[in-house]
Amino acid sequence: MTSGRIEGVLSPVVTPFKGDLSPDPDRFVRHCRWLLSQNVGLAVFGTNSEANSLSAEERIELLDRLVADGLDPARMMPGTGCCALTDTVRLTAHAMKVGCGGVLMLPPFYYKGVSDEGLYRSFAEVIERVGDRRLRVYLYHIPPVAQVAITLGLIERLRKAYPDNVAGIKDSSGDWKNTKAVLDAFGPSGFDVFPGSETFLLAAMREGGAGCISATANVNPAAIARLHATWRSEDADAQQRRLDEIRSIMQGYVMIPALKAAIAHWGRDAAWGTVRPPLVALAAGETKELITKLEAKGFDMPGV
Amino acid sequence: MTSGRIEGVLSPVVTPFKGDLSPDPDRFVRHCRWLLSQNVGLAVFGTNSEANSLSAEERIELLDRLVADGLDPARMMPGTGCCALTDTVRLTAHAMKVGCGGVLMLPPFYYKGVSDEGLYRSFAEVIERVGDRRLRVYLYHIPPVAQVAITLGLIERLRKAYPDNVAGIKDSSGDWKNTKAVLDAFGPSGFDVFPGSETFLLAAMREGGAGCISATANVNPAAIARLHATWRSEDADAQQRRLDEIRSIMQGYVMIPALKAAIAHWGRDAAWGTVRPPLVALAAGETKELITKLEAKGFDMPGV
Repeated sequence: MTSGRIEGVLSPVVTPFKGDLSPDPDRFVRHCRWLLSQNVGLAVFGTNSEANSLSAEERIELLDRLVADGLDPARMMPGTGCCALTDTVRLTAHAMKVGCGGVLMLPPFYYKGVSDEGLYRSFAEVIERVGDRRLRVYLYHIPPVAQVAITLGLIERLRKAYPDNVAGIKDSSGDWKNTKAVLDAFGPSGFDVFPGSETFLLAAMREGGAGCISATANVNPAAIARLHATWRSEDADAQQRRLDEIRSIMQGYVMIPALKAAIAHWGRDAAWGTVRPPLVALAAGETKELITKLEAKGFDMPGV
Repeated sequence: MTSGRIEGVLSPVVTPFKGDLSPDPDRFVRHCRWLLSQNVGLAVFGTNSEANSLSAEERIELLDRLVADGLDPARMMPGTGCCALTDTVRLTAHAMKVGCGGVLMLPPFYYKGVSDEGLYRSFAEVIERVGDRRLRVYLYHIPPVAQVAITLGLIERLRKAYPDNVAGIKDSSGDWKNTKAVLDAFGPSGFDVFPGSETFLLAAMREGGAGCISATANVNPAAIARLHATWRSEDADAQQRRLDEIRSIMQGYVMIPALKAAIAHWGRDAAWGTVRPPLVALAAGETKELITKLEAKGFDMPGV
């Protein structure tokens, strides 16, 4: 990271909850420390963090706790994009205040069918209000969930207006053609492209990508980070296949409760299973099946 | 309203913004007063209020201002459903504290494909935490925007568990078959059904509906309220046709900026045209066309 820019593999860190459904800062810090020890950065407050089930205050408190406990904010890319302009500004300004390496910004996602002009004004307004030259925004394109897309035309306009601030994208479209189009159009000018799944990690690195930000980096961080570090090696394709195998098992279940079930199992800490509504924890039978399938592949989470 | 329950026509009150995009409480109070004078209740902070572009704090401040200025909270049904459980609890508890007649509650809408079990737990958790016997929740079914639906099975479960609190629904599906199914299943037990458009007002009243909650009640309140008051009269079908004519003109434009453009024009107050991103105000040509079409129908907004 000689450029000081975030690169490599990041995890949208799952958020632990206590029995009363309040965030559990102790377990959160512990999991973040473990991820850093596995060479994975902290895309806290992403989709897989249940961040959209947290209030702005809850996100601020958790982020402050990470920083207070000495975790390096340069490795953090908190999600700050909310429906409300004022919430997005507040969270982004706070992330800058504590020194985060960047922020991952959803478009405002309640109103559907909005124009690129309206989305441009949303992002521009946030960047102008935060007014910090160091701000690095990573646009968050996740149409299957947000239902509001970040188009190539929107990226182009934002890059032109704010070349220093609009630093990259997380592309969770699941559509390699879109990721490739973004890499081709903006990669050469230093725009950092992170596919939203390690499935596309090797392909993206070969096309000038910056890494990936993936849910499964919560449970399989070291192996994903290793492929990023050694993508030019001879066994890179074999590594990719192995990653895909683990991911495809996880994808047989609702992802967030499945991630938490795996952490609860390998961390010997049942409290990790708790999710906040509207999500529901895996049923006992599902958890057992998931663990059995992962164990059959020799999967482990050492030190979690 | 002898039962003390909210009935009749309500407007999802459009929220005025100042030039700096902050909410404009003075214009907001004035518009709310005018709506009440037209016999229309205040479903503040609905979809058409751009409420999902407001922070929780901004909603609380605006609601407090309405109450402080003497508007009757019994006529208010603020939107309180957010993505985050804690925000929904906070806004709902606040609405109860100031004496609102009910609250209109979106399901948590970021995560898609969630189960009825998860949605049940979301609503149940809010009701339990607010813990107020007077709380009347109106479920907000608006699948075209929220993308997360309120099914008949979910209503049934919630009604069974919280018969006093789960008071009704706003059905903005735009699908009369769904509205009719809800009326048939739950109307006889006192569940209040409000279609999300006056297009279905007469049909709903004939099937035991409670009224309607409609965007266009911001601009055409008296006529819609009159149909509600006189739906058994001989000219009811003619009234309905006239309402549909006005609504269909409005629907030729993006609804929220079109509502604001009409208020700006008939209220002689250009500031009303401002919307918050990601929305965009109508272009001058669109506004002119809209006004011309409405004027050709003899449309007016006396006293706005």
